[in-house]
Formats: sequence, structure tokens, C-alpha cells
Amino acid sequence: MTETPSGGQTAPIEAAAPSGRRRERGSRGTRSAGTPDFSPIPRLRVPWAPLDILSAEQTERILDGAYRVLAETGLEIRSPEARAIYAKAGALVDDETQIVRLGRDIVEAALALAPAEFVLYARDPARHLHVGGNTVNFGPVNGAPNITDREGGRRYGDIAAFRDILKITHRLGILHWQGGIVVEPTDRPVPSRHLDCYLAHIECSDIVWAARGVGRPQAEDALAMSAIEHGCSIDDLARRPTLMTVTNVNSPRRVDEEILASIMTLAAAGQCVVITPFTLMGAMAPVTLAGALVQQTAEQLAIVALCQLVRPGAPTVLGGFTSNVDMRTGSPAFGTPEYVRACLATAQIGRRLRLPVRTSAVNASPTVDAQSTYETFFSLQAAILSHSHLINHAAGWLEGGLAASMEKIVVDAEMLRGWAEILKPLAFSDDELAIDAIAGVPAGGHFFGAAHTLARYETAFYRPLLSDWSNYENWRDVGARDATVRATDIWKRARDEWVAPPLDPAIREALGAFVARRREELERTAA
Amino acid sequence: MTETPSGGQTAPIEAAAPSGRRRERGSRGTRSAGTPDFSPIPRLRVPWAPLDILSAEQTERILDGAYRVLAETGLEIRSPEARAIYAKAGALVDDETQIVRLGRDIVEAALALAPAEFVLYARDPARHLHVGGNTVNFGPVNGAPNITDREGGRRYGDIAAFRDILKITHRLGILHWQGGIVVEPTDRPVPSRHLDCYLAHIECSDIVWAARGVGRPQAEDALAMSAIEHGCSIDDLARRPTLMTVTNVNSPRRVDEEILASIMTLAAAGQCVVITPFTLMGAMAPVTLAGALVQQTAEQLAIVALCQLVRPGAPTVLGGFTSNVDMRTGSPAFGTPEYVRACLATAQIGRRLRLPVRTSAVNASPTVDAQSTYETFFSLQAAILSHSHLINHAAGWLEGGLAASMEKIVVDAEMLRGWAEILKPLAFSDDELAIDAIAGVPAGGHFFGAAHTLARYETAFYRPLLSDWSNYENWRDVGARDATVRATDIWKRARDEWVAPPLDPAIREALGAFVARRREELERTAA
Repeated sequence: MTETPSGGQTAPIEAAAPSGRRRERGSRGTRSAGTPDFSPIPRLRVPWAPLDILSAEQTERILDGAYRVLAETGLEIRSPEARAIYAKAGALVDDETQIVRLGRDIVEAALALAPAEFVLYARDPARHLHVGGNTVNFGPVNGAPNITDREGGRRYGDIAAFRDILKITHRLGILHWQGGIVVEPTDRPVPSRHLDCYLAHIECSDIVWAARGVGRPQAEDALAMSAIEHGCSIDDLARRPTLMTVTNVNSPRRVDEEILASIMTLAAAGQCVVITPFTLMGAMAPVTLAGALVQQTAEQLAIVALCQLVRPGAPTVLGGFTSNVDMRTGSPAFGTPEYVRACLATAQIGRRLRLPVRTSAVNASPTVDAQSTYETFFSLQAAILSHSHLINHAAGWLEGGLAASMEKIVVDAEMLRGWAEILKPLAFSDDELAIDAIAGVPAGGHFFGAAHTLARYETAFYRPLLSDWSNYENWRDVGARDATVRATDIWKRARDEWVAPPLDPAIREALGAFVARRREELERTAA
Repeated sequence: MTETPSGGQTAPIEAAAPSGRRRERGSRGTRSAGTPDFSPIPRLRVPWAPLDILSAEQTERILDGAYRVLAETGLEIRSPEARAIYAKAGALVDDETQIVRLGRDIVEAALALAPAEFVLYARDPARHLHVGGNTVNFGPVNGAPNITDREGGRRYGDIAAFRDILKITHRLGILHWQGGIVVEPTDRPVPSRHLDCYLAHIECSDIVWAARGVGRPQAEDALAMSAIEHGCSIDDLARRPTLMTVTNVNSPRRVDEEILASIMTLAAAGQCVVITPFTLMGAMAPVTLAGALVQQTAEQLAIVALCQLVRPGAPTVLGGFTSNVDMRTGSPAFGTPEYVRACLATAQIGRRLRLPVRTSAVNASPTVDAQSTYETFFSLQAAILSHSHLINHAAGWLEGGLAASMEKIVVDAEMLRGWAEILKPLAFSDDELAIDAIAGVPAGGHFFGAAHTLARYETAFYRPLLSDWSNYENWRDVGARDATVRATDIWKRARDEWVAPPLDPAIREALGAFVARRREELERTAA
């Protein structure tokens, strides 16, 4: 990796933020009272039962409704190839209207083939992505056209910002997969842009990444580059899947050809398809929660069935993105009470169907402030408590997805690390009950100097990345910098401290050759 | 009420915030798409099982530890009267050291008398406070010495700010009880300051309020004024309790005489005592969560037992405030992962003991920003999911309690209203499943104009108070005002729109006479 940091003028941040941020990754479990922990968040399992919001009867009514929509109204499937696959399975297909109607029997037979749990393999063998059960995983902002940060302002995304996001989240150790299009690199030519993205993923981090969710060449190139990264064949990938794609339905009830091409290519290769209807209540879905869930479920099931028809046993995930809009303006809203209820219901329906679920941590705030924080937190806690297996947009999402924010990554990092700490199994020894320590401190005294405290204080508590617990006067005297202002120093430092993960030089060379060849082919074809 | 608003120059807020904020209270259930709902948050019941973080065995180990501390180490009880009560019940009392050691049998016999559920009666009969079961209640910031707002800056609290906080929370309809010392009115003489506070409570709102948690005259005057407010005798109050007091233990293991006087006076009168050990891990309690919980439980139980010995059946609540400190500086931290785990464990121990529980929504941020929001949200969601019955500091707390913030009240109001919406029972009709509506919108179309949407859109969604869902350009063009900036307009408008709740003129007159007499007595005694 010869890339140099895009800025070397990072200001000192010790004054108002925890010190010791320079510590390198790898020395896990040795953090001290003065050092936030940058070792990667481990695999997280929710130790509590999932939070069920629907009654069993309500769940069945939504499912019954979804099956009725599939059988009676159907989906517009804008790919002759996909329609042929559905037709072969017994669906009612009208090639003129492109409407496909699916009987419940067809869908249920397909669902029976879909795995309830699976593993996606990462280059770092410690970081394979377990999907299913009570495991929750965090992923980054995806699909934002703009990048924003306090100093650089809001602007179209570019490949430098794309790589910076990957470096920051890698350095902060907060994600279980590194996403797909974390920001749109608009400075790269469209036909070959995905190659720049995939190369960035492989060079900047070493965990599972995602193929772009639109287009057959984009899917095929992801397969080819992942095979090179993992030193195996594309056939091998089917036995040991490495990729996901997170893609949408053009709700209501339409799936475009380019999306279907991506889905079918990756499903055929045994990679993970996360299908997410874009069902904003009142806009692309009914205004009622129940109605939006009916439509979301119908759209999800049609695509899961397609994937299973393409390749029985292909890993598939139900994506939930149902939220509401501002009915005065039509603007999307996220992290609302409606979003929370939709998220909880989506995961519950997934459990009923024995399929993994993807939801999100999202907000519709125009800036990194209290609103962006509570909206993200509403959605994040719902996603975790629902046992959502993939939690998308969990770092850096802003403005309902129209911008990726560097400062928001840092705020989100604190929330994600906090949750990881909360979810740790709780165990304690007799010594931790501290009966003798309590007896040893006089009434009205303090425990600061107690041997029981001194033996433990360096590792007793979570060390924050961003939170400032100074008293008001100290905080004011060093500049009265709020969390968003402090976050600027932290993301810049994380970017500058990023260290390229190991990558075999032969693999690097093979990737370079592949990208050069494909870039030339794609741009020639487009020209 | 002749009081005039302390400011009439509130700027228009329609540009960047929801319009229609002028709607008056009372017209419940008729909000439209353009109008946030200011009707009071109803009684909230958590529809999900409480989130248990401890195993049954871990709970018993903590309880066993607490009983060992009570029996072997004991508490320093700095009141001869209280020690005599403990001694009469069979405790080992050393009047020289003031240490009281309590056998498990004494405590368990007392606990058997304490109610698992009870009601505190409000002047507004629709707003009685139900404590116990799966009901959660929100209360405001308490005990802050400073008041802060964006325009007025940070300064010592005064009675004007005290009243403004009550007016704002009353107008916003976000609380189930209105607290005690929402900010310290330092401009009023100490001996009679509580009279100003109680009068403000009775005049500015009509829900349950709290007596100051220190001092016998303060407790006695609360009883007298509550009896006048409710048009009954102090004896009547015992049968129909109206008051709570939220008070602390001087942890570790010490209770001062003035606190004990307050506790015993109110318990004797059948009012609710919420006893909250001040157990910051590593400072006033062991550095381990288990140890802090042992100490917290021991301290809680000693006081609950005292209340039951004073008056069998007196309503008592276990208060949990266990958090950690920054081990580099000793500064308190709130809303941390340790806080969340302590909160969940506290409520679980309360369930085991069949006693109601009070926890908090708290933060240690120096300003109203992302940090104050995520710390408050971490603690708020833990309090709700734990089935904490009283959630203190849920509106306006900042800086670890050193300041009450007007803007924070507004941010918190949005979170509390959001939670209230999420906790609503989920029901839906067949029509809400929207099968026909889905069939009626073409694939790739939209639901904006659908009859199913038009019939429902005005009341379909939660209307935010503070959130701004404008697109970036619109938000920027009206001033790029973040949530904290927008909150200033909202709290000022809420204060100005406040309408005094009904109060019988004869009661108002009797209160005025009582306060005048007592003020004179107290200031003469102090002089």
C-alpha cells in the first residue's frame, strides 16, 4: 500500500479527549484506564430473548397477506431470464405485463431450501461473518452520493473519501463487515467504478465486503476479485462464500433487470443476497404498518424464492427498511417510532420464516447533532433487540442516506462499542462481590485507594472514544468543543493511524492485472 | 396565576420546525399531520417481558452478599431516633459508632410488609401515578445547582428557572410526575426555599410532585401543602398518598440525620420514599459491578426496612444510581455500558424482592450534543426495558446533574414521546393489512394519492417536536440550525404557551397564607 494519508495536519486531541489513542491494533485485552480499545469488536451474541412486538396471530396475518399479494397481485419482474425461472417453478407469468404471480406452495418449497444460518468467509480468519441465530453484526453506511465532514464540507463522494471511510472503520475496529458502496466515488468512470470500490475493500481492510447491488458485470467482477483475494476459484467460493450483495426492490412490486441480474449472478455463485424492499409507508408502501409489512414480506419472499430456484441453499437474507415519510413533504423519515416497530416486526417475521434478517441504524438528520444521534439510537437498539443479523448503515449514515459523514462515523463508533460492551456475558467471581472490600472502607469513606480498586481500575470500565466527562469549567477552558467538533480530530487521527492489513504481494499483483484488464474492457465497451 | 412569561420575544420557528405548535392541550387524539401532539403522555406499560441480565443464581449471590453486609458490617445511622427504631426490631446497635447491624430475618420481615404496587394521587384525576407492575413513569431533572440555556448561558439556578422548567414540561406533556428540586432556586433563602418550590409545583402543574429529600421541616411542610392542595387532612394523605421523596444514602454505608428525618417523617405519614444509594463504582462503592450492586442493595434494604418499621405498608421504592467514574480523574460517568448493566440488574433485583424500582436517564456531557443524547438514550432505554417504575432525570439533566438544561428538556421530550409511541399496544384491522390497497397501486407506482393513504395520513405517524427532516439544501438555506439551536425556540414557546392548570381560589388563598406564615417562622428561627 503506497497510498499516503490525505491530510497530515491533524491537531492534537489530548486536551479534550481520551489520550493514548495511538495504541496499535492487536494487543487485545490489555487496555488501561487511559487507553480506548481499538481491537475489533468481537462476534456479538445477544444474550436476551428477541423482543417480539407481534402476537403469533398478527405474524400469521401478515404472512397470509403477503402470500395473497404474491398469488393474486404479483410482482413486475423486468427480466425475461428471471421470469423463465419463475415459470419453470409453476408461477403464473405474463410476459407482456411482466407480472409474476407466485403460489404459496412454490414460495414455501423454496424457503425450505434457504439456510437459517451461514458463514461468510473473511480474509482475516478471525473475522468470518456469522449470520443467523442470536448473532448481530454491524456494517457501515452504504450508497451515499455525498460525503461530508466539518472541515471539507458537503460534496460529491470520491474514491479518496471511499478509501478514507474504510480506513477509519478498519482502524476503529467497529464493523463486522465493511459494506459495499460506502460513498459513491463519483470521480471514477461509471462503467469501471465498481473495480475501484472492490480494490479499495481488499486493500483497506480484510473483512467481508459486498458486491455492488446492480448489474451483472459488477457481480461477476466481484466474484472474480474475491476469488483472487482468497486465492481460490469462483467455484470454490460457492462452497465457502465470501460475498454479499445488499440490494433493493423498486417498491411497490417491481424489480428492475439490472438488480435481477446482480441477484441471479451472485445467487448462482452461492453468495449471499440481502434483499431489501424500499417500502416507505405512505409513499412506496401502504401508510399502515401492517400493510407495509405485508408488502415488504411479499417482495422479500419473491426474491428469496428466486435465489433458491437459481441455486438451492443459496444464502439469502430478508432485508427490512420499512419506515415512514413526512406526510407534509414526502421526505423520508428514519429512526422514528414507526421505524422501530417495523424493525422489530421484520425480525420477528424472519424468525417465523427461519431466515436471517437485515435491518439498519438510520436517521434523517441534516447534520451530526442530537437528532442524528437519537434517531440512529432508536433504530440501532431496535435492530439489536430484534436480533437482526445484519445491521446496515451502523456507522456514518446521515441525511436519510444522502450523505456519509466522517464525524458521524465517530459518534456511531462510540454507540457500537458501548453496545458491544453491554452485550458481553455477565459473570462475576466471589471476589468481585467485594464483601471484604466493603467492610474495609469506613462508612462515608471512599474506595479510590482500596486494594480491591487498585487491582482492577485499569481495566474495570469501558474507555470511551469520544465522550468527554470533564467538568464544565475544564471543558469550556479548552475550547467548549462539542462531540461533533471533537469527532473531527478522532476520524482524522484514525485515518492517519490506519495500517494496511496483510495482503500477499502475488495477490496484490494479480488484482492489479485483473483491474487493469477489466477497466480497459469496460471502458472500451461503454465508449 | 398572574405570573407573566419571562420573555415574549420568541422568534418564529415555522421555518425549520414543525408548524402548528400553538395547539392547546386537551384535544387529545385529534392531531393532524402538521401538528405535534402535546397531550400528556398516557400511562405507559411495557408490553414486553423485562430484560433480565442476571441469572437467578447471580441475583441470589448479590442478595446474599447484601444481607451479609447488613448483618456483619452494618450502616452508620446518624439519627438516635432511627437507631432506636432499628434496636427495637432486634438490630445490633452501637450508639457510639452509630453502626446498626441488621439480621436478614429483620429485613425480610420488613420487606414482607412493603407494597409491590401502589398509586400516588395527583390533583388532575387523570394523572395519578401508578407505581409497580409493568408501568414505567418519567420524571424530570432533579437537584441541579445550575441552569443553562443557549441564550442565557450557564448560571446558578433561581426560582424563575425552576418555574420555567415546570411550565415547559407541563406544556410539553412529557412527564408522569413533576419531580422535586428541578433546579436549585439559589435566589431564595435556604430556610424557606422549599416553600417556594412546593408552591411552584402546585401552581405550575397538577401532577404528583416530590418533597425535598432532606430535613424534617421540609417534609412536614410538604405534607401540609399537599393536604391543602388536595383539600384534605394530613391523615387523609396516608390513606391516599400524594407525595414522594427521592433521597440518597451517603454511600458508602452512611445515612445522615437530616436525610433520616425526611425519610421517617414521610414514611410515618404513609408517603412514598424512594431511597437511592449514591454508589459510583470505584469511588463510593466497589469498582466491580457485582460489588457495587451488593452495597447498593444493602443500603436500599436498610432504609426500606426502616420505613416499614416506622409504618408497616408504607410505599417504598428501591433507587438505583450505580454508575462508574472516570478512573483517571474521578469524574462521574453516566449512560455508560456499566450504567446500563447496573440499571438492568437493579430492576431485576427489585423484581426478585417484589419492590418497585427507580432508575434514571442520565449523561455526563458538558453540553447538549451527540454525547448527551447517546448517554441519555443508553440509560433511558435500559430503564424502560428493565421495567423501572420511576425513571428520574428523564428531561433536562446535563453535566452529570450539575446543570439543568432548557434545550436538553426539548431533546429529551422527543425521545420520551418517541418511546411512548413505541410502547403503544400494536393492533391492526384487516383493512390495515391493505391487501386491496397494494393491488390498487401499479408496480413501481406510489401510494401518496391512494384512498387508503388519504383516509389515514393525518394521524398515521408520530409527529416530531424537534426533528427536522428537510433536505440538506432547505435546512442550510434557513440557517443550518442543528437540533440544539432549534430546541431554544421550542422551549421558549412552550414556556410562553403554558396555561396554568385549574386551582380552586380558596386553595390558592390557603396556600398563600400557609407559605407566608411558615416563611416568617422559618426565617425567624434561622436568624
